[in-house]
Amino acid sequence: MPIYNPPVKDARFILDSVIGLDKYSNLPGFESASPDIVSAVLEEGGKFAAEVCFPLNQVGDQEGCTRHADGSVTAPTGFKDAYKQFTEAGWATLHSPTEYGGQGLPSVVATAFGEFMCSANHSFEMYHGLTMGATNALLAKGSEEQKTKYLPNMVSGVWTGTMNLTEPHCGTDLGLIKTKAIPNADGSYAITGTKIFISAGDHDLSENIIHLVLAKTPDAPEGSKGISLFVVPKIMVNDDGSLGDRNAVSCGSLEHKMGIHGNATCVMNYDGATGWMVGEENKGLAAMFIMMNDARLGVGLQGLGQAEVAYQNAVQYAHDRRQGRALTGPADPNEKADTLFVHPDVRRMLMEGKALTEGLRALMLWGGLLVDLSHNAASEEDRQTADDLLSLLTPVIKGYGTDKGFEVAVNCQQVYGGHGYIAEWGMEQYVRDARIAQIYEGTNGIQAMDLVGRKLAQNGGRALQLFFKVVGEEVAAAKAEPRLADFAAALEKANGQLQAATMWLMQNGMTNPNNAGAGAHHYMHIMGIVAVGLMWLRMASAAVSHIDAGAEDKAWLEAKLVTARFYAERIMPDAGALRRKMEGGAESMMELPPEMFANR
Amino acid sequence: MPIYNPPVKDARFILDSVIGLDKYSNLPGFESASPDIVSAVLEEGGKFAAEVCFPLNQVGDQEGCTRHADGSVTAPTGFKDAYKQFTEAGWATLHSPTEYGGQGLPSVVATAFGEFMCSANHSFEMYHGLTMGATNALLAKGSEEQKTKYLPNMVSGVWTGTMNLTEPHCGTDLGLIKTKAIPNADGSYAITGTKIFISAGDHDLSENIIHLVLAKTPDAPEGSKGISLFVVPKIMVNDDGSLGDRNAVSCGSLEHKMGIHGNATCVMNYDGATGWMVGEENKGLAAMFIMMNDARLGVGLQGLGQAEVAYQNAVQYAHDRRQGRALTGPADPNEKADTLFVHPDVRRMLMEGKALTEGLRALMLWGGLLVDLSHNAASEEDRQTADDLLSLLTPVIKGYGTDKGFEVAVNCQQVYGGHGYIAEWGMEQYVRDARIAQIYEGTNGIQAMDLVGRKLAQNGGRALQLFFKVVGEEVAAAKAEPRLADFAAALEKANGQLQAATMWLMQNGMTNPNNAGAGAHHYMHIMGIVAVGLMWLRMASAAVSHIDAGAEDKAWLEAKLVTARFYAERIMPDAGALRRKMEGGAESMMELPPEMFANR
Repeated sequence: MPIYNPPVKDARFILDSVIGLDKYSNLPGFESASPDIVSAVLEEGGKFAAEVCFPLNQVGDQEGCTRHADGSVTAPTGFKDAYKQFTEAGWATLHSPTEYGGQGLPSVVATAFGEFMCSANHSFEMYHGLTMGATNALLAKGSEEQKTKYLPNMVSGVWTGTMNLTEPHCGTDLGLIKTKAIPNADGSYAITGTKIFISAGDHDLSENIIHLVLAKTPDAPEGSKGISLFVVPKIMVNDDGSLGDRNAVSCGSLEHKMGIHGNATCVMNYDGATGWMVGEENKGLAAMFIMMNDARLGVGLQGLGQAEVAYQNAVQYAHDRRQGRALTGPADPNEKADTLFVHPDVRRMLMEGKALTEGLRALMLWGGLLVDLSHNAASEEDRQTADDLLSLLTPVIKGYGTDKGFEVAVNCQQVYGGHGYIAEWGMEQYVRDARIAQIYEGTNGIQAMDLVGRKLAQNGGRALQLFFKVVGEEVAAAKAEPRLADFAAALEKANGQLQAATMWLMQNGMTNPNNAGAGAHHYMHIMGIVAVGLMWLRMASAAVSHIDAGAEDKAWLEAKLVTARFYAERIMPDAGALRRKMEGGAESMMELPPEMFANR
Repeated sequence: MPIYNPPVKDARFILDSVIGLDKYSNLPGFESASPDIVSAVLEEGGKFAAEVCFPLNQVGDQEGCTRHADGSVTAPTGFKDAYKQFTEAGWATLHSPTEYGGQGLPSVVATAFGEFMCSANHSFEMYHGLTMGATNALLAKGSEEQKTKYLPNMVSGVWTGTMNLTEPHCGTDLGLIKTKAIPNADGSYAITGTKIFISAGDHDLSENIIHLVLAKTPDAPEGSKGISLFVVPKIMVNDDGSLGDRNAVSCGSLEHKMGIHGNATCVMNYDGATGWMVGEENKGLAAMFIMMNDARLGVGLQGLGQAEVAYQNAVQYAHDRRQGRALTGPADPNEKADTLFVHPDVRRMLMEGKALTEGLRALMLWGGLLVDLSHNAASEEDRQTADDLLSLLTPVIKGYGTDKGFEVAVNCQQVYGGHGYIAEWGMEQYVRDARIAQIYEGTNGIQAMDLVGRKLAQNGGRALQLFFKVVGEEVAAAKAEPRLADFAAALEKANGQLQAATMWLMQNGMTNPNNAGAGAHHYMHIMGIVAVGLMWLRMASAAVSHIDAGAEDKAWLEAKLVTARFYAERIMPDAGALRRKMEGGAESMMELPPEMFANR
């Protein structure tokens, strides 16, 4: 049967020894993150994820959500009760502002817990994840009245939230949306249109659902400059906070999907539903991007989460399954066969899983820290620095994190041989669930274009220069330590590929923007390799310090050094190949007329 | 709605202009492959696949197979009728020997048709594919009596066949099987045991099912040297050929799988079922490998098949879907948005699909030709040469072909954005179906070990030297032609990586076999890149010849040159990275104790 053990020890190592949470204890928001509290979040949060949410993961997949004749939707068996436990124990409120009933813990701590939830039950985690996104948008752009009306119940999780962007004819290109918002006399709007792919669009977990909806007012300009954001409750909220009548919004149908069956992906019909504008008219896309950026970090975490649970199960299977003999002679001569661990090709897949999950975990937690620092660092300069790095790394965390998350899940499925293809073992679900993370919240192609087309050039390339500076300085420092020198040299080389690729983009993307588009995906992956490489340098460096300080768990720390070396040997070499691919440019990619593709 | 158009034009181009079927018309088996016959097979066979089998592909996925209370199994709606049409039209008999009612057409022609069937309906194709495997094993090792009794109905497809290898505790390591064969007084055996993952193990398509089963006789030696092969009919066959009693073999349950739902994957229970030994006692594994090698080529074809159908649909979607604007300015200013074709990152995925499907098609058809030449070439030397190359390339066709087939299917799903994740569009099924091909008939890790551990060293490395000679000679010849020189240089470079990787293996695999194991997967991929690169050189060369000869479809031929260039620019660079990864050796991969993997 599938297992999941929250990687508390590894998360702790990163928080305590790589990030060094205690360094930030004087910053706003961090005062509540005492070591005791962080321990409790990791230990108890991990337990909640593993004991309450994980047992529902296969159930959710097999059963899916149900839409009833009256249009109401129920989540799979057990979800409602688990969600009740989730909110009652306060897990929904970790990172929310105390002003609205949240615990005000730092994002970096919530990120650690978020990974456990993503591993345990991707579909279940989404109900909360989308609520957080909607909460953030209201926090940033909502009126005081809107905040007072909606946020306390959204923060507590008694109400959930959704994001309504996509329509049948447009996903990426939101300038094409058709949903209309007609002003009513009382200042509200009548929202009419169809939204698709609405995760958690309707369900029975919460008492109310607060939809954030993109729509166009009657005289809105064409395209993306004419989009406004509206808040549309499923059930109207009276002035005293009590629930009123049902609003004219309902789930028209549920999608049949490859995975995340436990989350209700709805077609939402708005039939003159009452909504209120959030923020300024025609500035809805910008408001939506506030929640989108947070959501992208969250999706990166889903990629890691599925990779982690797939990895853990593959490790267990490799322990249990005996098949064949070591190439160097029987490892367990008294058994009829050796365990899968003796086979280098199985090790290859497991070590890739280990190197990537641990490296991505450090990157995601660093991302969480940057969220905190961008708001709460002591100086404007420090906040700016954090914001620059976060802005640069967000598409990498989402794009590279989910591409690698899927790859790890697929490789871990492969460890099982035929059993990996059979539903009861659980591995194929991780692959199917992981797949969505490469697609939603902006496909990974969109992430790559965000990185190359927007983030690189922003503020004169300030963020990228900063990133290179950080890598350069840490590499230089590490070279002085013999146990880190080889790794530092490998990272320097990979970073050199990133610099060369950047130079190539600057020289060739200007003359023909298609050159930038043609190389964007590869560029994002090179940056992912370097960013995770930087994390491995930090982890290796922390391990060396602890070993020298006589830490107890020496073997565990030395495993970090071995894994770093594996990362340098087996993952970093891709950077050079990716750069060379970029240098192919757009010509052979763009040359053929579209009709030639089908002429075969 | 999903589409499938058999790529007859491309297959024809390869058969006629790259392989040059007419060169072989004097060989046995080829005499029946007149241009008219080949045309009819491609055109009518393609039509059958597209019009009869493809419409059942989604039905099969959604409905799956059903096991009834009496243990009988029915295939999805429409499969039985389609199979009847399949056999009545003679599609089952293309490559089977005329002696038993087959058409005796060359393997290379049957391969072209086989691809269409794999694209149209992977699950449906398997019912026939496994029958072919069982037929081949009986042809090679069966007694005259067995051949006479079973083959005519298996060749015609009135009966189907299966391969029963895997047991709950062993798949790869067949030395561990427990199924017993106890001799009966009449020379038959009583077979008892449980076999799992038996594709097409029971169903309602055929009148009888002929199981080929690995089992151990009472005094058999331990391990793989004590395995014998048995033929066990589902329904006993009387001496006059009529059907008799039900044998004691039945389907205990159906597996719930990630994909290929239309094929019945059975747990098969043998309860003293009557069987007859095929070939010599304790030589069963060798006999099974006869059908396994053919089956591996067939699985490679499944990888290509799913990639092709996924590619075709992604191309159609990229035509139909308008989203965003070209980076170089609106391509269709009169429309609200441009088609997906303007976006380089979409093009990247489609061009990879085009380059890999066309390249793999050429490789698979070359593989089919090598099967023919290994049996029927005029001289012993030519037969040996073909057999050497085939033996070397079989794991590459299976392993690289299915890894890339899956990758293409995943990328083509990505072209659809969110719609790719929704079942009705069909894309996610191609991904799920394609996934099995990396796993069964020996996981791709096993293919890699077969290549590196067996095929490289066989006969003093004769096959590999031959392969290098072929590549070297064709590269040298192409360098003289200006339109091919760049590509030839790129292929030479990739081949240089393969040679360097080979050298590294020779130097490091002897001292520590784990070094060979640790690099096997990468080595298989480098060889795949070079082998498909050789195919692109051949296709580009044929295109140049045709252009110079004033061929009509010049734009189509020039597209081959563009695609070859794309292959060199965007796929070949991986060879260098893969070689460098190999050079990391086994140390960091094998160093950690197994328990450290779960310590997190």
